[in-house]
Order: sequence, then C-alpha cells, then structure tokens
Amino acid sequence: MLLRNVLLLFLCLAAAAPSRADDGYRLWLKYDRVANTAERQQVARAAQFVASPGSTPVLRAASAELQRGLSGLLGQAVPVVATAGSRTGGIVLRVDASASPALKAEGYRIFPEKNNLVITGRTDRAVLYGAFALLRQVQTGQPLAGLSLSSSPRINFRLLNHWDNPNGTVERGYAGSSIWKWYELPERLDPRYTDYARANASIGINGVVVNNVNASARYLSAEYIGKVAALAGVLRPYGQRVYLSVFWAAPKVLGGLATADPLDPAVKQWWAAKSDEIYKAIPDFGGFLVKANSEGEPGPQDYNRTHADGANMLAQALGHHDGVVMWRAFVYQAGSKDRFKQAYEEFQPLDGKFDPKVLVQVKNGPIDFMAREPFHPLFGAMPRTPLVLEVQLTQEYLGFATHLVYLGPLIKEVLEADTYAKGPGSTVARVVDGSVDNHALSAIAGVANIGSDRNWTGHPVGQANWYAFGRLAWDHELDPAAIAREWTRMTLTTEPAAVRTITDLLGQSRSIYVRYTMPLGLHHIMGESIHYGPQPWLAKSGRPDWTAVYYHKADSIGLGFDRTATGSNALALYKPEVQKEWGNAQTCPLNYLLWFHHVPWTQKLSTGRTLWNELATRYYTGADSVLWLQKQWLAARPALDPALYADVAARLQTQRKEALWWRDACVLYFQSIAKQPIPAPFAPPTRSLADIKQLVQLYQLK
Amino acid sequence: MLLRNVLLLFLCLAAAAPSRADDGYRLWLKYDRVANTAERQQVARAAQFVASPGSTPVLRAASAELQRGLSGLLGQAVPVVATAGSRTGGIVLRVDASASPALKAEGYRIFPEKNNLVITGRTDRAVLYGAFALLRQVQTGQPLAGLSLSSSPRINFRLLNHWDNPNGTVERGYAGSSIWKWYELPERLDPRYTDYARANASIGINGVVVNNVNASARYLSAEYIGKVAALAGVLRPYGQRVYLSVFWAAPKVLGGLATADPLDPAVKQWWAAKSDEIYKAIPDFGGFLVKANSEGEPGPQDYNRTHADGANMLAQALGHHDGVVMWRAFVYQAGSKDRFKQAYEEFQPLDGKFDPKVLVQVKNGPIDFMAREPFHPLFGAMPRTPLVLEVQLTQEYLGFATHLVYLGPLIKEVLEADTYAKGPGSTVARVVDGSVDNHALSAIAGVANIGSDRNWTGHPVGQANWYAFGRLAWDHELDPAAIAREWTRMTLTTEPAAVRTITDLLGQSRSIYVRYTMPLGLHHIMGESIHYGPQPWLAKSGRPDWTAVYYHKADSIGLGFDRTATGSNALALYKPEVQKEWGNAQTCPLNYLLWFHHVPWTQKLSTGRTLWNELATRYYTGADSVLWLQKQWLAARPALDPALYADVAARLQTQRKEALWWRDACVLYFQSIAKQPIPAPFAPPTRSLADIKQLVQLYQLK
Repeated sequence: MLLRNVLLLFLCLAAAAPSRADDGYRLWLKYDRVANTAERQQVARAAQFVASPGSTPVLRAASAELQRGLSGLLGQAVPVVATAGSRTGGIVLRVDASASPALKAEGYRIFPEKNNLVITGRTDRAVLYGAFALLRQVQTGQPLAGLSLSSSPRINFRLLNHWDNPNGTVERGYAGSSIWKWYELPERLDPRYTDYARANASIGINGVVVNNVNASARYLSAEYIGKVAALAGVLRPYGQRVYLSVFWAAPKVLGGLATADPLDPAVKQWWAAKSDEIYKAIPDFGGFLVKANSEGEPGPQDYNRTHADGANMLAQALGHHDGVVMWRAFVYQAGSKDRFKQAYEEFQPLDGKFDPKVLVQVKNGPIDFMAREPFHPLFGAMPRTPLVLEVQLTQEYLGFATHLVYLGPLIKEVLEADTYAKGPGSTVARVVDGSVDNHALSAIAGVANIGSDRNWTGHPVGQANWYAFGRLAWDHELDPAAIAREWTRMTLTTEPAAVRTITDLLGQSRSIYVRYTMPLGLHHIMGESIHYGPQPWLAKSGRPDWTAVYYHKADSIGLGFDRTATGSNALALYKPEVQKEWGNAQTCPLNYLLWFHHVPWTQKLSTGRTLWNELATRYYTGADSVLWLQKQWLAARPALDPALYADVAARLQTQRKEALWWRDACVLYFQSIAKQPIPAPFAPPTRSLADIKQLVQLYQLK
Repeated sequence: MLLRNVLLLFLCLAAAAPSRADDGYRLWLKYDRVANTAERQQVARAAQFVASPGSTPVLRAASAELQRGLSGLLGQAVPVVATAGSRTGGIVLRVDASASPALKAEGYRIFPEKNNLVITGRTDRAVLYGAFALLRQVQTGQPLAGLSLSSSPRINFRLLNHWDNPNGTVERGYAGSSIWKWYELPERLDPRYTDYARANASIGINGVVVNNVNASARYLSAEYIGKVAALAGVLRPYGQRVYLSVFWAAPKVLGGLATADPLDPAVKQWWAAKSDEIYKAIPDFGGFLVKANSEGEPGPQDYNRTHADGANMLAQALGHHDGVVMWRAFVYQAGSKDRFKQAYEEFQPLDGKFDPKVLVQVKNGPIDFMAREPFHPLFGAMPRTPLVLEVQLTQEYLGFATHLVYLGPLIKEVLEADTYAKGPGSTVARVVDGSVDNHALSAIAGVANIGSDRNWTGHPVGQANWYAFGRLAWDHELDPAAIAREWTRMTLTTEPAAVRTITDLLGQSRSIYVRYTMPLGLHHIMGESIHYGPQPWLAKSGRPDWTAVYYHKADSIGLGFDRTATGSNALALYKPEVQKEWGNAQTCPLNYLLWFHHVPWTQKLSTGRTLWNELATRYYTGADSVLWLQKQWLAARPALDPALYADVAARLQTQRKEALWWRDACVLYFQSIAKQPIPAPFAPPTRSLADIKQLVQLYQLK
C-alpha cells in the first residue's frame, strides 16, 4: 500500500512535468541527493541544522543556500535556526570582525568547534563564500567531519563583463538572448536573476558589468539607472556589485552638451553629477568600464586628449564614492603594420599618468581572444598601473556553442606566463593580483558566455568555463584539471571512472581545437565578421587588419608573421628573457612559432617534419581528435543523464563536421600556396577548395 | 510512517528542483491533476486505456499525447494498447478513410461505441486533432461520458510565420531569441522543438514558415535545406509542414546568376532545380512565402516585372510538387500621398493574373498591425485570387512583452468585418476561407510571438494570443471570449470565479490598450523604428510615411486623416455599403473616426463631447483602466500560481507606467496644437511635454 501510493505520487509528478531530463538550468548547484548512504549519513550527522543570526541579507542568502543545498544533498529538510544554543552537529555562521588577520575581507574560514562546524570571516560576504565552499565540499564527496579550511581571494575585483545590449541581443553571445529584461525592469525581477547571482557567488564572482562595452548611452539615463538599481538589489545579497560600461559621448547625447572633451568643465560636471545620481540609487555601485577610441567608439582622442585624460576625468567624477574606472586597452588604429604592437604603443607611455582609481583592462593576448595567444606585452610593462586581465568565456573564436572547448587551461596558460618584469616568477597572475608591483587594486574580468538559453551557456560544457573563470579568479594557483574534476562531479556525474574520462576530455579539448583550427601559432584566419568557420583566404575587408592574409602572410616561401627584428619587431615589446624564448625560430615553442616567425614551408621543425608536413599533420590529427572526444563522451554515457548525454553528443557531431571544414579549408588553401603534397598517411580532401569556400562563405550571407 | 515517507519524498523532490513555481513552459498543455475527485473519477472511467494501431508517426504522437495528458489529469498511468479487443471504458483511435464525407481531411469525430470513445477521421492528422480536442474537453471540465462531437477546419493552411533570422534574433520578437538553433542543426534537435510542435498541433496549426520574410538567402542553400529538413522531421508527426521565406535575389547570391529576373530562363531553371532539391529533402515541404519589392527587399519590379510575374514563376518552379506560393501584398512606395491605398493599387489590378498555386497574403489592415485598423480593402476586391489573412501575434505595436493585450477580439473583429463583396455577409472570414469566391485554397497566417523565453511568449498572456489564433484559424465562428475562457481554464486556473474575472480582463484588454494609445482611430503615432512608446510629434524620418504627423494630420483646425473624397479618397476602395458606414463623420463609428476624417477639435461627437474632450477623456480613462486590469488580476490571485501571479502583476505595473507615458505624451502634444484645456474632472499632467519627449526619446538611443 505504501509503495503503491508513493508510486502514484511519482506518476502524478512525472506526468505533470514536461520532462524529467536534466536541462542544465541548475548549473553546478544541482544538490541532488548523495547516492552513497554511508557518505550521506556522515554528512547528515555534521549538518543537522544551520545556525545563522540572519542579521543581514547576505547572511540570509548564505543560510538559505545551505538549507537548500544540504536539504537536497541529504534528501531531508535541514532547519535554519537563529543560534545553535546547546545544540551540536550543525553548521554555525558567524561574522567575526576580529577573525584571523590573515583573512582578507572576503576570505572565509571553516573550522570545528564544540561538535559544530563554524563558517566565519570578517564580513558577511566572507561567510557567504564559506557556505558555498562547504557545499562544494559535500558535492565533491569530501567529508565534513573535522573540516578545517580557509581561503582568501587573491584578486579584489572578480568580474563578469556582459556584452549585452538594450535590445536584448548579446554581442558575441551564443546562448540565446540577454538574461536582462530591460523593458520589464525595474518592476519585474525575473527569478532567473537570483539564480544567476547564486551561481556567481558560489565561485566568488563579486562584480557584474551589466552592459556591452560598445555601450548605449541609455544606461546612464535616470530611467535606466532605476533599472540597474533594481538588478543591483538582487545581486547585493550575493556579494556582487554592479558596474556600467559607459558611452563616451553620453554628455552630448544625454546631457545636450556640445562636447565630450574630458577637460571641458561642463563635461566634468556632467559626469560628476551623473556619478552622484548613480550612487544615490546604487550606494555600492562598482564603477565604470570604458571602451574608448576603439573600433569606432568615441573617446577622448576625438578631442586630442589621451586615454589617461579620459580615465582620470571619470575617476575624479567618482569623487568620494567607492568606485573604480576600468579603461580598456583594446585599441588598434587602421593602417598599422602590426596590430600586435598598438595597444602597447598607445598605453605603455601612459604608465604612471593614471589616477589611483583607474585600472587598465588588457586582453590576455595582443590580438583578440584567439584560441592561443602569447600573453599581452602590456603585462609587466606598466608597473605603476594596476592592470585588469580580460579573458573571454564566450566562444567568439572558439566555435560558438557547438565546439567543446574547456578554457581552464587557456586561462591558466596566461596566468602562468612569466613576464620577467621583476625577474623570473613575475607571472601575469602576479602582475594582475598586484603582488609584483604592490598595487592595492587588482581585478580580473571574464567576458560572459551567459544567455537566456535554459542551460545558460548554450553548450553544456560552456558552464565549465564560467565555473573555471570564477575559481581561477579567486585563486589563480588552482589547477585547471582539478577545477574540471570538481565541476564534473558537481554538474555531470559522481561516478569515478566517468569523472576521470570527462576530466581528461575537458583537459584536452582546447589543444584539440587549436590543432584543427590554428595550429603552430596561426591566428585570425577565421570567417569574416561573424568569426565562424575558416576563411584563411580572406584578403579584403573593411580594414587590412580584419583580413586573414594580414596575419598568416603565406607566400611561396613560407608561412607566419615575422615579428622579430627582421620583421615588425613586436617581440621587442617583451623582456629579454621572453625574447630569447620566442625569438629564435629553431627553438621557439611550436605553439607560438607562426606568431613570431615567417617559416619556410620546407624547413625542418623540432618534430622532424617540415613546416608544411607538420601543419598538415596537425590539421589532420586535430580533426580526428574530435573522434576521440566523441569516444570519451560515449564511454561516460552510462554515468550521465540521457538528455544531457544526447545534447553534448549531438554537438560533438557538429564539431566533427566543422573540424573537417577547418582541416579541408586550411590544408587546401595553404597547399595552393605551398605547392606541397599532403603527407602520408593522410588522404587529400575529397572536396575542392572552391567547394569548401562556397560552404563557408554561405555563413557570410546576411 | 506512510505520511512521513511521502513527505520526505516531497522534500527530496522539492529540494532538487530549483523551484516548483509555474514557469509557463507547459503552456495550455499543463495536464495537472483534476482537483475535483468526482470529476476525475468520471473521466478515469471513460479513459482507462488508449487503443491505437500506432501505424504512423502521427498516430503514435496522438496516443503518446493522450497518455501523457490523461495520466497527468488523472494522476495515474493510462496504458496505450494496440487494440481495445474486448476491453471497454477506453479511448480508441481509428483512421477511417470512409468516415463521414462531411469531414474534411483534417476533420475529426469523437463518438461513443460499445462503451468506448472513438476518435476518428479520414487521416491520421484528423485523429491527432481529435486527441487534442478530447484532452481539451477534460481540461475544461466537460464530461467525457457519451461525448459526441465533430469538427473540421474552415481554412486549409493555418500557419505561423516566424520572423526569425539566421543569427538567432527575431524581428519584432519580444520573448528572447529564436527557438531555432541554426548552428546546432541538423545534428542537434532541441527537445523544445517537439514541445513547440505539440502546442501547435493542439490548436490545429498545420504549417510553419520558419524564417523571416526579410529573408536570408542562406535558407535556400543545401546546408540550410538540411537543417530545415531536420526541423521538418520533428514537426511532421504533429501534422505540420514547413515553409520557407525566400530572398528574391537568391539566384544571384547563391546561384551566381547575373539576374533574378523572373522571366529569365536561367532564373526559372534555378528555382525549379532548387524546388526539386528541397522536395528531395522535405517531401511534404509546404512552399514559399515572399516579401518582394517591399521595404528595400529585392523583387521582380527590379526587372520591370509585376508581382504576378514573380509569383507565377515561383509557382511554376514548384512544378508537380504539392506546394504553394504565398506572395505578400505588404508594399508601399516612398512618397505616396496615402500609404493606405498602395497595396490595393498595386495588387487589385493583378487579380486573375496569378497562377492557381499562388495565394496573396494580406495584412488585416491597410497600414501595419495597428491596435485597431479597418479591414484591408483588398479583402473582397480580388475575387479570382485566394487571399491569406495575415495577423500579428507578436506585440510589435502593442507594448511588447509588458502590456497585457488579448488579441482574440482583434482577430475576430477583422474576421467578422463585412466586405459586402458579394452582398451582405461577405465577411473577411468568408473571403479568406474561400466560401465567398469558391476557392479551393485557403490560408491564414499569424506572425508568431514565440521565442526562447522559458514561457515562450515573454508576457504570460501572450500565450493566449498564440492559442486564440490557432483556434480561430481552425474555426472563425468561435467566440473570442469562449476561447479566452478555455485558455484560462487550461493554463491558469479552474476556479470558476477566477476564470470569470480573468476572462473579463482578457476581453477588455485590447480596447483598453487602444484607448490609452491610439483612440478614436488614431494610428501610427508610436516611437520611431522600434515602435515602442508614444511619439506623436515625430515629423522627420527616413520616409514621410514613417512619421506620425503623416497619419494624424493634427493642425489648428482638427485631427485625423481625411480619406473621403475631399481627401485621399482611400475610402473609395471599399464597397458602397462600407463607404456609407464610414464615409460620414457624423455617423462613422468612433473607433474608425480619425482613420477616415479630419475632425475639428471642437466638433461634437455622438458621445456629446467635443473631439478634443473625447480624445482627452479616452486617454485618461484608458490609462486608468490599467488600474482596473490590476484590480482584476489581484482579485484572481488566490486561484493562481504565486510565481505566475507575481510575473503578470509586475508587468501590469510597467503597463500602468507606460500607459501614463502614452496619456501624457499624446494629451500634451495634441493640446499644444488644439489649444484646448484638459476637460474636468481630469488633472493636467504634472510633467511637461519636454519631459515626456526626453523620456520617450531615450528609447531611440542605439
């Protein structure tokens, strides 16, 4: 009778829901019941209640999350109480302003006390992070009993940059439309905002730039400030501040001024008043992000002022308010000989000229979010300016939402890159976290891959990139493989063999993508404008530096961009140690070879193959490695939710198809110049270059 | 013990799900358990099993839906068996080619037989529609026992037009991005496609134009035909054919031809070959929808050919394939004196010149989907051409996703409008269904309001417009209030008082919207380009007929567009009976007054008020009627899902705010011309015209 009723109940619930498949909405905060009974009971003994003073919205968010998470993981309700009193076997939240001085304001500590587990820190936000850390502990199958750990973020501002437009589109977004519903704000708060804030908090993200760097002036209007304030109200209990990208010409467009000259008193006054207006609505507003004099956006150079003039004016406009200006260094004038050098040439001379509230935001590499770039030469070259590292999570150049590319290794690669700015060990990570040059301000920004798709990121594995960014932003010492393992366990499966298989797959995925698209240091040979598919033959565009031939420089002799002293000499922007590593075509790591050298087709590389043969080999083996990804995914199938399995399996099929486009496009195109045969054992493509051009150019049609 | 375990189970399920709130995804196919035990048991007795031969995919879809629906409604599993055998008390699906000749191919009949209920029809699609009709019966609380009903669609092709672009945006879409994931197709089939197909099938929609009428040539490439074929495979078991919007210049862009002249042999051959290619991939392909020589799109007039030349060429290209061409009459050249007349002037003379496979698709009104338009003068004026009625479900001119506007009454109003083409009773409905002029082909198209938002339509009540369109397309004799009641019961609540309250609210909502935006026949005074908010002062645009002043013609004397013989004489395009109704400013229904007459501000209307006073009264009472909508919604609250209640309540707040924008903008602007005081008892707006202009124009910023 009991069984029958329970079954009936199940049937009822099952029938009412459209599908019980895992649709990915819950991200890594799944909180499904721990399957192993002994493990579950062990956790249950240590988590019989949550005691929280609940004295702030942040603390209430922390205890609510613990309750939700633990109740799900344990399959039984876990109560929240105000104080533990004499009870033991529970979790106690405690803000302690006098907690260990080793803890930063956001750093948490978890430790056992009288048979309870205490989560503490100097601020409520620290406790919130500790709560998520405790949940992660359970989600990844680690015991709670006697748990003792402590962690502080290495970087102050850990931001997502949303390139979201007022009309709901997302520039370079591949996961539906914007999650922000501007026309509904401020009256309606989509429940999704809260789940977004929870996800960010769980990985330590503490700031959100809500709008596109190609900014609309709308956001600075009273009307939109009200909307942004409503969002800020949702994000605040989860420890996140909102920031705005600003349209430089806003004083003209919104304020009716005749100029946006940063040295004009009326302009200064307009921005100062605007800052006051914003802070009145959003007391913890984070500050401004600016893309100026870049790709057609207006900026201070329109008035013969420098980037520093512009940034400093904005910083001063912030006045006494606790905010910062993040000024992007992504600039390149048309007509230059080597775009690689331009941001450096414009910004490096400004070092020391910025207001203390200004940070300069630098992309990880000198061009634009290629699947692999050498680190940006500005890192280590502006010791008097705090630099924000900007990485891209959305897969603009990485196959959109159908290519599986785990970015942990990419982000880690740049963090670990040694600038030698103050001798060996002056890694990009240590430049960015302020330790190389003793900056108090530090920041890192990820261009979000988040959209309105049910699973947030389009490709389910895109979630891992959001996750890995947050984890590395908090602690750049973490191992991307360990992060992948963590994410897999929390998100996909706890079955040990499957976790290994998937972690392996994730770990290899970015190298595989590089191999079938732009191996050996090739860059910027993707489809025009939309940045989809291969187009190495692209020779004409709105600007020469938007073509492919500008970058690969294939000719009858060889391939690659000579950036040594015989070429553009961009290499000279780096410290001598770096120049030494990359400057010699014989010893330059193959991953960077064509970034810096024009190499003859027939030159023997360290692999023993000629450049041409190595190039062809990488395209063929790269495309075939997608078969390996498919095999790995298939191997994990029994441990995976069927809907989720099918989703990724189908995307891998597309990835395989498009990897073959890349291979055939690039091999055939470069062969037409190199005049070399496809090396054994590879069979020449069965289609012609004309065929593949036609196929790829289809995607260029409006 | 039993109770405790069941509660535990509940807790477990509740904790695992992010939220149990109704997120609207299930639309009107909710299938929640019937709350009334007696009612449920009565249904259960009549629905103990579903017997289906399952011999076609459509029949399998029908039985699967019955199983899913009945299992949910009854809270217990309902088995599907191949044949009833000697069993009784079940539902039997039966395709019967010799069924009643009164049934059209898609018409179904449900009748009792030997204690079973038989759902039959001449085709499996008919049985599918019957299955949904039976479920609707249960969902709306009507008994199954002895059920006997039969229904055939009055119009052959009942289509949704998706204005969806290859990049995932939706032109005039306010519900997220496109539900079609072109980059994932054909490999990945989003499970959502199936739920979309189920929803369409449930209301009788049998065709889907998947792409925007401002069409990309991409869709005609082999690559995209493969993607569309994959979608067709999902839609087919639900009785829906796919259609494509075509880019007229495709033979040039894709085929490399020098021309797209419809009389050029190479062009004809290209289209014929393309048709063959499409039908090879999609044997039941529906045909082409064409927007040509309209708003900058290419077309046959580029080669001095007529619309008929173009349409007929495409029809011939379809050859022996079972498809049609729907050629849109939405054309208007720049510089005309009255846009109202242009489609008529271009198309009416072509009547009789179209190939039998061509239908001409005409918007409901002569301008462009205003909240109220007189019916399009082409209806009844092209007796030798089957006309498709095109209505807009997406709220381009109806406040996007924050205004609650139920469109049943709008659609019904145009269907019921009498053209007098063949004497009284020659309604638009009867022109469109072919009965006035004895056409075998008949079609109706709704521009979809569907997007990737979880609830499909942005505003939850937008679902009612999708629903009402399908129901009226099937049977234009239905009462929109009855449809609203049906939808409310299936979607929101079964509580009788709440159903009445909401049905009333839905029924009034469109009139209220008209009242606070464009009362008395005002039209096209909304915000430029984005069509959001009021902008009656708009006097300059890319074209004069994109301004507001072109349409309202406010001057010191009065307001409105004189379309009588003393003006543009557009009224002469209608039959004398219609002219008589609308031609006299004294007797013209007030809803159409300013569509046809320039009326002095001080002229007394039938209401006893002057035009100015009536106008102001409508703006004030219209905006205040939103308070009534809010009151109604609040009254229904106890019967509604809390999340859904809150969602609509918040949108109503926005609607109230924006209704006040409209009121203040229009009253202040027209007052500046009319020089009349705001009539008692209304208080003048507290803001100035300049204030409101600034607010509204903010939304014009990029």
